[in-house]
Amino acid sequence: MGLSGLTGRLIAVDWGTTSLRGALLDEAGRVLAEKSAPLGILNVPGGDFAGTFAAQFSEWMCDAGSLCLISGMAGSRQGWQEAPYAACPAGLDELTDHLHWIEPGRIALVPGLSVEQDGVPDVMRGEEVQIFGALRLTGIAGGLFVLPGTHNKWVTVRDGRVTGFRTYMTGEIYGLLSQNSILSRTMDTAAPLDEAAFRQGLQRATSGEALLHALFGVRALALFERLSPAASASYLSGLLIGEELRAQPLENGQGVVLIGAPALTTRYALALSSAGVKSKTLGAEATWAGLHALHSAIGAKT
Amino acid sequence: MGLSGLTGRLIAVDWGTTSLRGALLDEAGRVLAEKSAPLGILNVPGGDFAGTFAAQFSEWMCDAGSLCLISGMAGSRQGWQEAPYAACPAGLDELTDHLHWIEPGRIALVPGLSVEQDGVPDVMRGEEVQIFGALRLTGIAGGLFVLPGTHNKWVTVRDGRVTGFRTYMTGEIYGLLSQNSILSRTMDTAAPLDEAAFRQGLQRATSGEALLHALFGVRALALFERLSPAASASYLSGLLIGEELRAQPLENGQGVVLIGAPALTTRYALALSSAGVKSKTLGAEATWAGLHALHSAIGAKT
Repeated sequence: MGLSGLTGRLIAVDWGTTSLRGALLDEAGRVLAEKSAPLGILNVPGGDFAGTFAAQFSEWMCDAGSLCLISGMAGSRQGWQEAPYAACPAGLDELTDHLHWIEPGRIALVPGLSVEQDGVPDVMRGEEVQIFGALRLTGIAGGLFVLPGTHNKWVTVRDGRVTGFRTYMTGEIYGLLSQNSILSRTMDTAAPLDEAAFRQGLQRATSGEALLHALFGVRALALFERLSPAASASYLSGLLIGEELRAQPLENGQGVVLIGAPALTTRYALALSSAGVKSKTLGAEATWAGLHALHSAIGAKT
Repeated sequence: MGLSGLTGRLIAVDWGTTSLRGALLDEAGRVLAEKSAPLGILNVPGGDFAGTFAAQFSEWMCDAGSLCLISGMAGSRQGWQEAPYAACPAGLDELTDHLHWIEPGRIALVPGLSVEQDGVPDVMRGEEVQIFGALRLTGIAGGLFVLPGTHNKWVTVRDGRVTGFRTYMTGEIYGLLSQNSILSRTMDTAAPLDEAAFRQGLQRATSGEALLHALFGVRALALFERLSPAASASYLSGLLIGEELRAQPLENGQGVVLIGAPALTTRYALALSSAGVKSKTLGAEATWAGLHALHSAIGAKT
């Protein structure tokens, strides 16, 4: 890495739907300080993004030469300003080309990525930074990346560029079914993961039955007391994650990089392992590493 | 039909989750009077099923020889009394054998049906009566029957007996997604059916993409303004019904009997027709015909 590309300290910000997190990074990408607040884009007082940003980060921004890069939903239509998506295939270069500057040379919104597959678009916003961070942290240049969450992403990377991805509504649908549907009546979502029931759900997902039918099985099994309330939530989770896995062109012995919170990545690692697929897991550090990599890429261009 | 089997007038009752409907039928099955009240099993005052039943039907029950048959959720664990499921394969004989008498010879709950397929159970309660009614009304003894609703049923009948069925959570999931998910933000569910968008959804369902991914496409298409709020709801409906159809062993030229409310059966008829499958539609009359057929079967045994 050529140090010539680095222009100083980076204020790395991940501004999502429900929270605002920031880190002060030195030239080598080391975290000097971190902060977070429940000020996601839906909770910005009076919609005053500039004021909210200043209140949180003006102290860090005082230093001459400080640059701030913001990833996540802050760049969406409902956010601070809209940073149009960069189209795939896209690497760090395409991201730097599409930065949306709020204050030229000082504060920029990182664009999300879009892709068109079989005539239907797909989008991500924030995950792209985690992926480039994961590439930096693992030293690999390609492979399959999975980012579990409300809207899970399965992402293909080649030669350092995102070539395609698919979003799955798995997390949101799990939430709706376990809390608002008929299935919730016989389900204890607070129970810890029941690995046997989770695997039973995974296996059911490979039976070839349509998901819309397999889901009703959760209800029928509970009616006949063949699935306890505590086991039901894990079975449902296995059913949905299994359905997601079934759609992937996974090969035995393949490796996958998981990026996300441990509560979710653990389940995906389990599911992948039972399909003979190895996985490596990264957490929140991928975001800071990604924004740092982007910072370096900007420096290399200027 | 041997008149010897008929014992008099029938009070046919369909007691579901949200409503209580009844019909007074003569010996030939003709409807002499009908009534309905928003007294579904979840809205029975004080849980007093006997009192609620008496308040609605005691006048009709006064006649000597009157028999009352009640189908639907009144026979579930949350209902008046639990009428255990009859196992498939099951015809009218199995239903009469499993009637749950509340007052011997006077008031009976019709059992639902259960089936076990690939190690997972499935259940119905109320639809079985509609199917036997449809057999009577159409004069056929077998085929594929579809009962759209919150929990859609696809039912196989051979020689007058239900041999198997599958429940799909299509209706409930459509409701959750169109009202409570991220998709609801760009969806106008009050708009009338947009047939082109519905067909676009149907077609997308046959693309081989996993449903969990195809659903997010509704969001992405709306983001890029390629799907209007009015068209989104129809597209989603096509996507889900298409997914359900994809799971059926349908053959070109085959005929299917649809039973249900026109708002739903119309969509299924459209979807089936674009798959080259003909359909015939029946409505609420199937319930009364089914309870009348059951009445005749009881009479034939006594």
